[in-house]
This record gives sequence, structure tokens and C-alpha cells, in this order.
Amino acid sequence: MRIHLVNPNTTASMTEKAAAAARAVAAPATQILARTSTMGPASIEGFYDDALALPGLMEAIAAAEGEGVDAHIIACFDDTGLDAARALAHAPVVGIGEAAFHLASLVGHSFGVVTTLRRSVPVIEANLARYGLAARCAKVRASEVAVLELEDPASDARARISAEIGRAVAQDHADAIVLGCAGMADLARALGAEHGVPVVDGVAAAVGLAEALVRAGLRTGKSGPYAAPRAKPYAGLLAGFSPR
Amino acid sequence: MRIHLVNPNTTASMTEKAAAAARAVAAPATQILARTSTMGPASIEGFYDDALALPGLMEAIAAAEGEGVDAHIIACFDDTGLDAARALAHAPVVGIGEAAFHLASLVGHSFGVVTTLRRSVPVIEANLARYGLAARCAKVRASEVAVLELEDPASDARARISAEIGRAVAQDHADAIVLGCAGMADLARALGAEHGVPVVDGVAAAVGLAEALVRAGLRTGKSGPYAAPRAKPYAGLLAGFSPR
Amino acid sequence: MRIHLVNPNTTASMTEKAAAAARAVAAPATQILARTSTMGPASIEGFYDDALALPGLMEAIAAAEGEGVDAHIIACFDDTGLDAARALAHAPVVGIGEAAFHLASLVGHSFGVVTTLRRSVPVIEANLARYGLAARCAKVRASEVAVLELEDPASDARARISAEIGRAVAQDHADAIVLGCAGMADLARALGAEHGVPVVDGVAAAVGLAEALVRAGLRTGKSGPYAAPRAKPYAGLLAGFSPR
Amino acid sequence: MRIHLVNPNTTASMTEKAAAAARAVAAPATQILARTSTMGPASIEGFYDDALALPGLMEAIAAAEGEGVDAHIIACFDDTGLDAARALAHAPVVGIGEAAFHLASLVGHSFGVVTTLRRSVPVIEANLARYGLAARCAKVRASEVAVLELEDPASDARARISAEIGRAVAQDHADAIVLGCAGMADLARALGAEHGVPVVDGVAAAVGLAEALVRAGLRTGKSGPYAAPRAKPYAGLLAGFSPR
Amino acid sequence: MRIHLVNPNTTASMTEKAAAAARAVAAPATQILARTSTMGPASIEGFYDDALALPGLMEAIAAAEGEGVDAHIIACFDDTGLDAARALAHAPVVGIGEAAFHLASLVGHSFGVVTTLRRSVPVIEANLARYGLAARCAKVRASEVAVLELEDPASDARARISAEIGRAVAQDHADAIVLGCAGMADLARALGAEHGVPVVDGVAAAVGLAEALVRAGLRTGKSGPYAAPRAKPYAGLLAGFSPR
Amino acid sequence: MRIHLVNPNTTASMTEKAAAAARAVAAPATQILARTSTMGPASIEGFYDDALALPGLMEAIAAAEGEGVDAHIIACFDDTGLDAARALAHAPVVGIGEAAFHLASLVGHSFGVVTTLRRSVPVIEANLARYGLAARCAKVRASEVAVLELEDPASDARARISAEIGRAVAQDHADAIVLGCAGMADLARALGAEHGVPVVDGVAAAVGLAEALVRAGLRTGKSGPYAAPRAKPYAGLLAGFSPR
Repeated sequence: MRIHLVNPNTTASMTEKAAAAARAVAAPATQILARTSTMGPASIEGFYDDALALPGLMEAIAAAEGEGVDAHIIACFDDTGLDAARALAHAPVVGIGEAAFHLASLVGHSFGVVTTLRRSVPVIEANLARYGLAARCAKVRASEVAVLELEDPASDARARISAEIGRAVAQDHADAIVLGCAGMADLARALGAEHGVPVVDGVAAAVGLAEALVRAGLRTGKSGPYAAPRAKPYAGLLAGFSPR
Repeated sequence: MRIHLVNPNTTASMTEKAAAAARAVAAPATQILARTSTMGPASIEGFYDDALALPGLMEAIAAAEGEGVDAHIIACFDDTGLDAARALAHAPVVGIGEAAFHLASLVGHSFGVVTTLRRSVPVIEANLARYGLAARCAKVRASEVAVLELEDPASDARARISAEIGRAVAQDHADAIVLGCAGMADLARALGAEHGVPVVDGVAAAVGLAEALVRAGLRTGKSGPYAAPRAKPYAGLLAGFSPR
Repeated sequence: MRIHLVNPNTTASMTEKAAAAARAVAAPATQILARTSTMGPASIEGFYDDALALPGLMEAIAAAEGEGVDAHIIACFDDTGLDAARALAHAPVVGIGEAAFHLASLVGHSFGVVTTLRRSVPVIEANLARYGLAARCAKVRASEVAVLELEDPASDARARISAEIGRAVAQDHADAIVLGCAGMADLARALGAEHGVPVVDGVAAAVGLAEALVRAGLRTGKSGPYAAPRAKPYAGLLAGFSPR
Repeated sequence: MRIHLVNPNTTASMTEKAAAAARAVAAPATQILARTSTMGPASIEGFYDDALALPGLMEAIAAAEGEGVDAHIIACFDDTGLDAARALAHAPVVGIGEAAFHLASLVGHSFGVVTTLRRSVPVIEANLARYGLAARCAKVRASEVAVLELEDPASDARARISAEIGRAVAQDHADAIVLGCAGMADLARALGAEHGVPVVDGVAAAVGLAEALVRAGLRTGKSGPYAAPRAKPYAGLLAGFSPR
Repeated sequence: MRIHLVNPNTTASMTEKAAAAARAVAAPATQILARTSTMGPASIEGFYDDALALPGLMEAIAAAEGEGVDAHIIACFDDTGLDAARALAHAPVVGIGEAAFHLASLVGHSFGVVTTLRRSVPVIEANLARYGLAARCAKVRASEVAVLELEDPASDARARISAEIGRAVAQDHADAIVLGCAGMADLARALGAEHGVPVVDGVAAAVGLAEALVRAGLRTGKSGPYAAPRAKPYAGLLAGFSPR
Repeated sequence: MRIHLVNPNTTASMTEKAAAAARAVAAPATQILARTSTMGPASIEGFYDDALALPGLMEAIAAAEGEGVDAHIIACFDDTGLDAARALAHAPVVGIGEAAFHLASLVGHSFGVVTTLRRSVPVIEANLARYGLAARCAKVRASEVAVLELEDPASDARARISAEIGRAVAQDHADAIVLGCAGMADLARALGAEHGVPVVDGVAAAVGLAEALVRAGLRTGKSGPYAAPRAKPYAGLLAGFSPR
């Protein structure tokens, strides 16, 4: 099985970290094909970055489709471009945010989310509402760790995230924790052991869900809003994205 | 007062129709500056078109901000890029979809929406849920009229839309109707008279709301997720979109 | 355009303050006809006052309809009698509470409400739920300022309201504020400047929405629950209110 | 135990029918004191009638409080004035609409409501939402029987109501039925036997709930929005309603 | 009228306390038949106890049906086995949890629940959601008093429960309180007097609701999911439970 | 990896069919340990069967825990006893109903469920609400095929299920289908091909999710309501189930 993992921002070190997390949990026969977006923002923090990450993501999905992958994983916790990717691809698509929420729902009665900056909280809350899982989430908490700080070994990012997990368990009564950024993928197991609570990393979760979909022979339904884009002209800088 | 109306698709005839609808209801002192996107899809029908319309929309918003407009209107019923535009702009931003839903809530106890293709229905339903107004909407109905058919005077588009309005009133007990496409802006008054029910066009609604915001001195709050984008490098084809 | 603004309580100084706030934002050609209720409570604080304010409100709406106004504004933040007024009137009707919630939804991702007494909080929460906008509201806060204290220049009402706005921004992460009483109409701009957050006054909001409805040619839909009252006898003290 | 049953419309024959239904189910020691409103509409059909029924209702509640009753029942299915009555009274207050919904929730998994005119449906739906019981209700159906037709033995009202019950069971899968008008109180048992499904009359339900509250020593909580009205002047026609 | 009150745990002292609470509020002609489960857990604290309490509860319901009772009350605040009991019985069934929530909805605008251990909170919250009454509940609070401590006169259980009621009123603005355990039935009146707020005991509430159902001639609807169990073989230890 | 699949009814042929479906999708290194309940109902159709299936299920979970399995799958679409199993087990537990809903959410925008008898519909709807996924489900449809008919090759069960899938796609606009019974596990792939829509079998879905949880190192959180049962005496027929 070949799974395409795409990082929709342009920071290659984050792609590598996510790919490593994916390979650590993948079944022996699963191959992880990792790709970094070639255009747009270096990290996705808020609505504007999110909007400008979409063309690079679509380009990556189209390229991987051409290579005949079995599934796609979007390795950004905001699930950037998930619906558009499902419309474009034939293979199933899993976002790491939704993946984490779904698995957390299976090991916790009420899960907490610990993410990076406060400005990401409403994006995550909106996704939870859209997926239907808002009622399963006790609270979305911000650690005020910026995405690129996670790439800096000298920062105190881990300590701040751990403190926020402690508050989620003690104050919000969360009995499972979701780490709300692809850049936190390497912290999940250690933080879980430290707090005695299941800690879900979205990358690992998405690999498991993608494998589950492929083994069960399930692909995105095309009879509704995920139908292939209608052929039409695209203009200007983006003319190359026109659906045939 | 100067209001920037941006059509996020690249079809100039739709921009002209929307601009005419805007000017027809604007206050005497209000100036409508209409702009057509320079890149991306010729019409927005589904998630993929929506994703690729965002860079052109952001470019237009940034250009109008540079000209010092008082408010922006996004003239696509899907409210494409609304959150990103609010983060980017200093002036307030109104989407024609949300505008129509808000005004319909003031004249109807339960409004119906009549849109173009079935594949747009889930997008509109998701927007209604996101805005909190889903419970105010009786049903979103598709007329199966494609967006560009609305530009063709020989089509039977108007008759099919009228028939769907009739069903919304009789079967769904809607007591107000929202027309679910910018390209239907010229039909609202006549259809309202025909059916004896208020029929809301989003362009007219958005002009009224933009004027209301400006007169009340209200701009987008910047203390939460609509904070200005953080400065960071953007790569590749989209390097020019990098926030300073 | 002639807009009827009715204060459903009997305190004329509140009517004057609301009329001034309305005139400050109305378009040049808009005329504000202000009217104070002739019967019932001097201020509306809770369910009982609300119930007894309705006949006076209906009398005022009927009188203004006779004068051929283009729209009605109910200048009580509880939106007292809104549904009944819509049934009675041919012209559209806007409540200042709903108006403020709708405009706040356009400039904030999540708005807070700062009102007078704690006992008003459940009324406002119920209205938010009824309008569908509860999910857009972070929290309704009481300043414990009584309505008539707002008419007393010597009170510390403004300071207490300002403190509560500070808590709404810092603790509830509200990025827009709604002032929850018609008597606060004169405070909105200054408090907005002080806190760096959009502060919405319902009176100004309602004027903008009423103008928007009239310019767009929209009136209340009469095919559903806002149908005109059925002719029937009324008895006793209220015999004069009988629908013809 | 003395229970005050007030009909908030002015039609005495409906009061008598409701009082008879109440006495038929009351415990032997329970005394039903029935009272007809002295002012306002002859029947309550829609928002305007509802608004003008409130003063007469408040007058009746106050009179009965003076007589020292143990509980009040508001015998209109719209639960007209329920919140205001709770604020005014010391004794507990039960609306026949809410009473029917609560009991139907105990005998059915999903109940249906069959009411009079279509225009009443949104009122009932709003009440269900407000009480939290909307999810327990399969559908609110209108029989298009006007309230006063129920007082006319020659009408085919009973047959139309029965047909609508049949549709609620067959099409909506309701396993309990609520009759949505005080004037239907005499039909419940026979229609239940006819359809083999529990049919709940609000008057009978309210008597049982009022008795339950009194026996359990429960009165309306006064620490929140049901606090007694604040003393303040009332003006004009309604000056007599001023809270002391 | 004969009402069967079944304690689904095996602790007879709790049955006696609940029976006493029931008899204290029952109408003179009502007979309370109390029964303790003969199998399963000594107290029900969490999902596992709940699951193993069901056979004993079903045995008790079947036995009482054989004796021709008019109604059943399940005297466990978790409403253990409520749906299964409704399917099995011909007489109506009332759970003390749901009974308390329904009556609290009639005397409070927003009620609080004070229960035993924190682990019971999610069970109660799930029930509130299932019944539709979650929005009526301000908060479910745990006093951290274990069920069997309530049977020990030397414990400080009452003081801890009282303190939690104080917090529910002051912090959550609850204007009615539900005691969340059958073992607290003897405390309701005194705590209500102490705090000046209605305090609802589920046992008393259930007796009132059962009497109300019986007097109104209402039994569980059998046309939906409460249909009698289909005849089929049961195996092993539970073979005796097979529906005929 | 060793996954315990337990059929909570006592029909061994259904266990075998589910085990075959599980093995067909499991990763090469995954071992499926299938077990049939030794006590209770031969099939689970409604609340009473569900209640009496719980002891047998708990016995099976405890036995498999003793054998050191890595995960448990409950092979009944009602997710019978899921919460109790999570409290009892150390290994993670997945219900086939929830598994199907979660995977269907990843391949469809709005999924439909096709189950056996109408009486199962409310059980499934309640589960969807409890999991938070109700808004993702277009409709739960009954094929009126009884569970044990699925074991009879001569029945027309498959045709009736297929017809219902057709209606879910055409009328409810479902773009993914969930088969609502473990006994339908062998039909998913063929029905998916026939209708051109993803058809999710809960057994296959549960295997994928269990593998995903185990690979990601995730077990049920024990800090909340899934804490191990408290030690206490159990009486009578069920004394053997007492938690140590």
C-alpha cells in the first residue's frame, strides 16, 4: 500500500518529522510517500495562510494521483483543503486533524485538544463543529507555542504543551488528549506516559485510518459534493489548475 | 462611502450584473467599485473551484485596501474566502450569502434557499451551520440551473427557479426566499412579486449591510482569529502573496 | 425614507437618547419618527414588565402604520413583542437586540454581550437561541447596572460596563461586543475606541438594517406565522385592540 | 389542594371544557378553580392574539394568588405568558403545552403533535425548542381546524384530527401523540383507543404535574429570572398592573 | 393505585429510604410496592455496575407486571434500564432521574444537578442529552460523596452536598437544584429551606409523574421501539429471561 | 497483533460470518480471535435483548483480557455494552456501529444507514447522537429484514437491502452508505460496486480502527468514566461478575 503524505506548508523539516511519525506506525507493507508543498506559506497559522496554501496542496494531490497512490494524508492539523482534495482525488483523503478527533473519540469519553496559538482555536472549533464531533471535545486549549518554535530544540515548547495537558485533564476532565499540530507528532507517546492519559497524534491517527480505508476498499463517494470538478477555463497565474 | 464589490470568479459579465444590482439599491452617496478576479475559475461550483478562487480574491482585496475603500463585498453566494478576507482587510467584509441569510431572518420566520446545482447545496448548508442560521432555514433547494446558464437569455433558467420557489413556499412552509447565486441578482424583485413572498438577493443585502456597518463605524475585530496575517515567507508561484 | 422608532417603555428620556443615536447614523434622506409607549412599565426588566409592555407597543405600531412609515424599530434590547409586531405591521420590523447580534456576527468571529441586570441574561440567551445566533455569542455578561441608572449622569454605570467589556475580551475571547440595552446607545463609539474592539449599539444597527430592508424592497412575509391577525372580538379593557 | 386553572382567552365554553377535563383526572382532594380572562382575544391564534392575552392572564394570576391557591395552570396550548406568570406568582405555574410534552416524553420515544391551524405550528416548535424537548418531537402537524370550530358539534373537526394522528403514526413514526389545543381536551381518550397509541391532553397532564409539584413541596425558584417584578410605575391604561 | 418502586441495586436500606420518600408524597389512595433487586451490584457507580444491574431489574419488572401494578418507578438516578423496562412492561415506567429533570424544568429556568462521584457526571450528562433537557441544565456537579456513604449517619455527606448546592446557585446561576442520587431522597426539603431554592428529589418527582400518567390513562406506546420483545431463545445463565 | 472479536448474541453462524469479514481485511500479522456469547439472546433486536446481552458480553471481554489481547471488537451494530466494556477492559474497545460511522464520515459528506427492522432505527439514531455524528447522517432506513433472515440464503434480504440503498442515494442524497447489521458484512463490496457508492461494513471498519489504535499505542483513558469498576459485592445469579 502506498500512502501519500503531503505537508501543505513549504517547511521541509516539518514534512520530515511528519513522515517519520507516519513510518513509525505504518504497517510493514505500507509505503509513505512524503511531499512538501512547492508554493505558499512556510507555516499555516490562521485563515490567510490557509487560503494561500490551497494551490500548492492541490498541485501535490494531483501529482500523487498521477503516481497512483492508494490514499492521501493532509499533514496540517487545520485539515487545510480537505474538501477540495476529496473532490480532486480518486483515492481517499484523510486530514490529520479529523483523524485525531475520530481516534480520540474511541479511547476517551471527552477529549481535549492542545494546539499552538490562540488564533488557531476558532479554526479547530469550527472543524470540530463541521465534523459533528464538537460535543465530544471538552475544550480546545492554546499553548501559545508558535508552529516554527516546535522546530527549535532550544525552546521550552514541550514544557508548555505538557502544562496545558495537565490543565485539560484536571480542569476540563478530558480523559484523552489530541495534540493540535503536525509539528508535535514526536511528542505524543512521551506525553501520554507522563500524564497517564492517551495522547493522540494526528499523523499516526491518519496513517491508521488511511490503511483502514484502503483495506476495506473504501474511496470517496463521488455522487455528491465530492464529484470531480467540472471542466472549465481557469485564468491568469492559476490557468494551469484548470480541470480538464 | 466607497464599497468594493469583488467577483471572485473571472467572468466579467457576472461582475457587471452584480454591480448593477448593487448600484440599484445603494444610497445616493455610495460609490460601488466593482472588480473581477484576474486568476482562477470562470465560475465557482464546488470545493475545488472555491479553493482556486482564493488567491485572486486576496489579490483583489489587497488592491482595494490600497485604494482606501470603506467596505468589501464578496459577490459569490458561497462566501468564498470570507474569513481570509476579514483577516487581510482593515475595512469590514460582507459575503453575499451571509448577507442574504441575515436579512431573510428579519423578514421571514423560516426562509428557503433556491440555488443552482445540487452539488452547491452542502456548501450552503455548511455555511448556514457555521453562521448559526441553519435553524432559520427551512430547506436549501437546487434548481439544477448551472451558473453560466444564468448568463444565457435563451435558457429556461428563470422558469425553473420560479418553480422551485413555489415548492419552497408550498412544501417547506418558507415565508421568505433567498436566491442562492450572485447571477440571480436581477430576478429577485420580479420573483417576489410573482410569489407574494419576500425574495432576497444577496448582492442587494450585502450593500445594505456594508452601508450599515460603515455608518455605525464598525470594522472587523482584530483581537481574535481575524488578526492580520503574521509576517512570514511564501514560496514559489505564490511568493508575491507573502504578508509583510 | 421614514423609520418609526418605538420605545416600548414609558420613559421619554430613553426614547430621546435612542432617537439621537438613530439620527446619528441614519442616511441623510432618512427621517426617524420616535414614539414613547403610552401605557405599561417605565422600564423593561424581566418577563412581567415585558408582558405588560406589549399593548402599548402594539398601539404604537398600529399608529405608525396608519401614518405610512417604511419600517419599524423596537428600541428595547429584549426585542419585546417582535413577533407580534411583525404580524400586525405591513412594513418590516427590526428589534435592536437582533440587529446588534446580526451586525456583530459580521465583524466578530465570536461576540460578547454586556447587559444591565443578571435577570436579563436568560431573556437575552433565549433570544439568541431563537434567532439561531447562540453559537456566535461567547457569553452574555451582566454589569449589574439597572436600566434607569443609565439615565443618571452621576452613576458609575459607564465604568462598570467598561470593566465588563474588558473581561469579555480577556476571558471569553470575544472579538466584538454588543451593548445589551437601548440606554447604552451613547456609549458605543467611545467604549470601542477604549478597548480596540468593535462595540455594537443596537439602535444604530437597527437603523442600518431597516434602511437595508427598505432599499432592497423587502417586507415581512405574510404566508406563515406573520400573517395578519384573524378578525375576532376582543373583550374588556383591551376591546380596542381587536383586529378588524 | 386548590389548583387555579385560567383560560387566557375570553371564551367561557372553552374554560368549562378545560375545567371538566381537569376535574376528570384530579385526585379526590383536589379542587379546580376555573377562571376565564376578562380582557383580550376570544381565542389565541398567532403572535398578536398571544400578546394581547397577557394582561388578562396576569390579572387572573394575581387574583388567584390573593385567594391562596396552591398552583396555577395556564389552559392555552401556546403556554401564553408562562414566564411572566412564574415571575408574578408564588405558587408554581404549569402550562398545558409544556405539561403535555413532558408526559408524552415519558410514554413515547418520539411524540407527534396535532394542532389546529398551520400558523400555530411555528409557535409550538419554538416552545419545544425553548423547553429543550424539540428533539423528542417527531413533527408538529396542523389539522387546519380553527379553535372555535372545536366548540361546534356539527363540524368535522374530530375526523380531521383523527386523520392527522394516523399520519403522525404511519409517516413520522410517532409512538405517542399530543393534542395541541385546550379545546381538544375531551377527545384524548377516545382517539387513543382508536389509534392504539397514547394520546396526551395538556389539561390532564397539567393537573397531574401541578399535583406532583404541590405534593413534593416545590415552588418556582426566585433567585433567577423568575424573581418577583421590581416595583416601578406603570402608566396609562395599564397603570393598575404596576408591581408594588 | 399501586405503584411498583424497584431499587436496581441490592442494598435493602436504600430501597427502604426510597420507599419512605415515595410514601411521604403519594396521594392517600396510592400504594407503594417496594422491591430490591435480587442480583447484581450493591450500588450503581459507573457503566459496568449499570450493565450488571439490568437482569435483576428486568426480573423485578416482570414480577410486578405479574402482580398487576399500575406503574413502575426505577429508583436509581442513572435511570438504569429505563428503555428496556418500557419495552418489557405494559404499565408505564418512570425513572427517578428523568422525573427530577422534568419537574425541575417546571420550577426553574435553569437547574443544577448535585450528584455523588465525578464518574457519574458523564452518565447524567448523557441522560440529559438523550432526554433533550441538557440545555435546561446549568451544570452537573459532583460532591464526591460515595453512594454508600449516604447510608452512614456519621459521614459529612450532607455538608458536602449542601456546599455544592451553594456553588450551583452562586456560580452557575441555577434557580432549581436536582439531587442526583436516590440515597439523597431524605435531604431534599431541608436543603431547599436552607438555600431558599427548590430542591428536587427524584423519588418524590417520580411518584408524582407516575400518578399523573395513571390518572390520565397513559401507558407506554408500543408502536415503536418500546414494542414487546420478540419471542426468541435465550441461552445459558440467562435462559430464564427469554421472552415468550 | 491479536484482536478479540466478540459476538454478543449467541448465534455462532453470525460470529463466523463476522470473523470471516474481519480476517478478509486484517493486516497479515493480525490475528482475529472470535468468540460467541454463552448467555442471553440469539439475536439483538431492541432494548430488552440489548439489556440481557450485557452479562455475556462482559464475560467474554473479561476472558479475552485474561488472554492478553491487544484490542476488542463488539460485533453488534447497536454497539451493545460499549461503555461498560471500555470500563472493564485495559485494551481498547471498538464497536462496529461507531466504527462504520467514523469511516463513513471520511469517505462521504453525508452518509446513509440501512439497517434491519424499524425498531432498531431509534437505537441507531440515539447512538449517532451520542457519538456526535448525527449531523453527518442523512437518514437511518429500515429494510424490514430481520437479523436471522440474513442467515437464510433463500430469503430476498439482499434485494430489499439493495433497494433501500438506492433510495438513500436518490432521495436522501447520501454519498456513502453504512450497512446497519453485523450479519450484512458479506454484502458490502458487491453492493458498493452495484450502486457506485462507498458501502461501509462495520466489521471491516472496526478491524481497521482497532489496528490503528494498537499501532498508535492508544488505550482507553481511565481518568474519567471509563475508570475500572470499583470493588464491591454482587449478589445472586450474577455474584460471579463482582469486580475484585
